[in-house]
Amino acid sequence: MSRVAAAETSMILGETISRVLSRVNALSDVGPGWTRPSYSDLESAAHVIIEDEARRLDLDVRRDAAGNLFARMQGSDPQAVPLYVGSHLDTVSQGGAYDGQAGVAAALALVAALRAEGIIPLMDIVVTVTRAEESVWFPVSYIGSRAALGRLDREELQAKRVDTGQSLADHMRRQGYDPEAVLDATPPAPARFLEFHIEQGPVLHGAGEPYAIVTAIRGGLRYRSASIHGVWAHSGAAPREGRADAVVALADLIMAMDRVWAEMLGEGADLTVTFGRVDAAGPAHAMAKVAGTLEFCLDMRSSDVAALDTADARLRAEIARIEAERPGIRFDLGRQSRSHPAALSAAMADLVERGAAMRGDRPRRMLSGGGHDAAAFAAAGWESVMVFIRNWDGSHCPEEGMDEADLVRAVEAVHAALVGGGGS
Amino acid sequence: MSRVAAAETSMILGETISRVLSRVNALSDVGPGWTRPSYSDLESAAHVIIEDEARRLDLDVRRDAAGNLFARMQGSDPQAVPLYVGSHLDTVSQGGAYDGQAGVAAALALVAALRAEGIIPLMDIVVTVTRAEESVWFPVSYIGSRAALGRLDREELQAKRVDTGQSLADHMRRQGYDPEAVLDATPPAPARFLEFHIEQGPVLHGAGEPYAIVTAIRGGLRYRSASIHGVWAHSGAAPREGRADAVVALADLIMAMDRVWAEMLGEGADLTVTFGRVDAAGPAHAMAKVAGTLEFCLDMRSSDVAALDTADARLRAEIARIEAERPGIRFDLGRQSRSHPAALSAAMADLVERGAAMRGDRPRRMLSGGGHDAAAFAAAGWESVMVFIRNWDGSHCPEEGMDEADLVRAVEAVHAALVGGGGS
Repeated sequence: MSRVAAAETSMILGETISRVLSRVNALSDVGPGWTRPSYSDLESAAHVIIEDEARRLDLDVRRDAAGNLFARMQGSDPQAVPLYVGSHLDTVSQGGAYDGQAGVAAALALVAALRAEGIIPLMDIVVTVTRAEESVWFPVSYIGSRAALGRLDREELQAKRVDTGQSLADHMRRQGYDPEAVLDATPPAPARFLEFHIEQGPVLHGAGEPYAIVTAIRGGLRYRSASIHGVWAHSGAAPREGRADAVVALADLIMAMDRVWAEMLGEGADLTVTFGRVDAAGPAHAMAKVAGTLEFCLDMRSSDVAALDTADARLRAEIARIEAERPGIRFDLGRQSRSHPAALSAAMADLVERGAAMRGDRPRRMLSGGGHDAAAFAAAGWESVMVFIRNWDGSHCPEEGMDEADLVRAVEAVHAALVGGGGS
Repeated sequence: MSRVAAAETSMILGETISRVLSRVNALSDVGPGWTRPSYSDLESAAHVIIEDEARRLDLDVRRDAAGNLFARMQGSDPQAVPLYVGSHLDTVSQGGAYDGQAGVAAALALVAALRAEGIIPLMDIVVTVTRAEESVWFPVSYIGSRAALGRLDREELQAKRVDTGQSLADHMRRQGYDPEAVLDATPPAPARFLEFHIEQGPVLHGAGEPYAIVTAIRGGLRYRSASIHGVWAHSGAAPREGRADAVVALADLIMAMDRVWAEMLGEGADLTVTFGRVDAAGPAHAMAKVAGTLEFCLDMRSSDVAALDTADARLRAEIARIEAERPGIRFDLGRQSRSHPAALSAAMADLVERGAAMRGDRPRRMLSGGGHDAAAFAAAGWESVMVFIRNWDGSHCPEEGMDEADLVRAVEAVHAALVGGGGS
C-alpha cells in the first residue's frame, strides 16, 4: 500500500467506527449511560443497525436460531479457515458507550476498509454479533456465543432474567428466535475468532499504550444470590451482646476476604474479589432496625482454577468463623456459578503482533479480567484472540472512556496482518 | 376492692386489650407484619376504631389540628392535674402487632375498668392517641406529640415521606387536618403523661420479668441519608491497588465503629450503634462491577448527649482515616438529625411503683433505647413516665411477641396506683 492508501484506510476505519457507535448508542441514549438488556427490543434494534451496515457492504447476512448475526465477506480461497471478527451489543444496566459495540464497529470497519480498497483476502471474514454476552441479566455466561457453538443446554434456557423474571427461552421467543432450534442447531466448524474490546481496566491507560493482545481470559466463581440471616431487632433497644446483625456480619466477611485477597496476591496468585451488590434496603430495612437479613453478590476471578478453588475454601472458612463468633448469624451462599479460565491462541496472538509490527507498534500481551465471548469460542476449540483498547474512567458505567483513534490503530494492525502492510 | 372485684377488673382489662388489638391489627392484616404509615389512611382508620371504643365508654372525644386524639374521662376534682395515658397507632413498614397499639389498648382498658367499677378518680384521665410516632416515614421525631405540644415548626412540615415523596403538610391535609392550624394551636397546660409500650429489647424477657418502669429515654444521633462515593470499575479487570470500592469502604467503617462501640461500652458509656440500611443495590450496581457509590443509614443512641458527641467525633475520625487510606473514596454523611435524651419523672415512677407493690410486684427501673412520645412530653415540661412490657422475637418486625397477660398485669399496677389496691 502507498502512504496515501494507508491514510485513506485510516479514514474509512475511523468513519465507520464513529458512525456505527453513534447509530447504536443513539438507540438507548436516555441516560444515565446506555442500557440494552440481553434479548431486549433494544438489543434487537442494535442488531438491525448492524445488519443494515453489513448489507451496505454487500455482505451475506445470516442469523442463527439464537439471534446471533453473521455477515460474511467471501474470501478468495474456499479452503482457507474463516476469520470471525466481532463482539456483542447488549450492555449492563447503565453501561458505557464502548463495551461491546466498539468491537462490532471495528469488525465492520475492517471489512469496509477492505471493500474500499478492493481487496479480497484469502479467507472469509465474518462480522460476528453475538447476543446476550453481559451475564448481569441472566445467570448464565456467554449465552449467545455458546448457543452459536451448540453449547447451551436446556436447563440454561430456563434461567430467569433478573429484571423481568421471564426465562431466557421466553425472551428468545419474544425477539423472534427459537430456543428449541438452538438446542438442535449444528454449530459451524471450528474456525478463528478475533474480538476487539476495551480493556475495562486501568493498565493500558496508566502505561500510555493504545492497545494490547490478550493471551488468556480469567474465569469466574460467582455467588449471584447469597444472603445472610440474622435477627431483626430495635436499633436503640438491642444491646451489642446478643445482636445477630446481618450488616455487621457482611462487613466482617468483606474485610476478611479483602485480607485473603491481599495475602493470595502476595503469594503470587492471580485473583480479583468483588462484592459488587449489597441489598439491605428492602421494605423491612430501616434506620431504626438492626438488619435481620440481607442479600449480596460475590464475584471472584482468576486465570487459574486452583486459585479460585483456594479463594472459595478461604471464603467458606471465614463464613464458618463468623457464624461461630456471631450466634444467630447464618450465611446462605446460594447457587455457585463458574466460568472457566480460557487460554487464547498463541498463533493468533503472533499474527496480530506481526500486523502491529508492520505499523510500528509493539503491543504488550496481557490477561483479560472480564469474561468475553472469545473464551466461549476458545473452549469450543476455535483459535481465538482478543485485542484490548485502552480505556479510562471505568467500565460497565456511563463514564467509560475510549479514544476512537486507539481503536482505529488496533484495527490497522489486524488489517496489516491480513493483507500485508509496510511501504508506509 | 374485693378479690372478686379484682378478678373482674382483670377480665375487663384483658377483654378490652384483646379486642382493641384485634380491631386495629385487622385493618392492615395483609402481611408480612403490619404496616400503617404515619399520616396514612390506615393510621386514620385505626384512630376511628379508637374513637368508636372511646364513645362506647362515654368519653369526651376531641382531635387536635394535627389529628391527635384525646378521649377524656372527667375526674371528680377539676383542680387535679389530668393524667394523659396513651401511645401511637402508626407502625414501621412490616412492623409488629404491639408497638404502639398495645399502649393505646392499655389506656382504653384502664378507663373501661374504671367505668365498669363505677369509680371516678380525682383527676381527668385522657386516653391519648398520637399521630406519626415512627420516625422511619418522615425524618422528624415525635411528630404528633410535638404538634400537640406546640413544638413542631414550619420547616418540619415540609419534610418528605420517604415512600411517597409528599410533604408532612400534604399528608396532614390529605387526612383532613390543618398544618397551618398546627403551628398556631395553643397546647394544653403541662400535665402528666403515662405510656405503656413493649420493651423492644430482650432485657425483661431474658430476666423473666413481666414489666418495668422507664426512667429515661435514649436520644438519637442519626445520619438518615449518608453516602459513599468511589469509582465504578470492572470486577474482573480492576486491580486491587487503585480500586475505590464504596462497599469495602463501608465495611471498613462498620467494623471500625463496632470496635468504637465496644470500647465506649468498656469505658462505661451508654451507647448503641446501628447501620440499619445499606443500599448498594441500585440499577447501576451489579455482580460484575466494583461499586462506585452506595447509600446507608447510621443510628447512634444514648441516654447521655456527651456519649453521642464522642461517638460522632470517633465516627468522623474513622471516616478521615478511611478517606486517607483509600484514595478516591469520599463520604458524605448528609444531614444529621438528633433527638435529645429525656429524663422521665421520678414522682410518676414512684406512683407506678406503689401501685405495683399493691399487687405484689417489684418492677425494675430501666432505660428505653427506643424513642417514644413520652420523651416529647417530658421535654415540654410534663411529668412523664413509661411502663415497659416484656417482649420477644424482636420489635419493628412481624415476629414481635408480647403476652397480653403481662400488659394486663402492668395496667393493674397503674389502676391500683390511681384507685388504691390491697384487700386481695
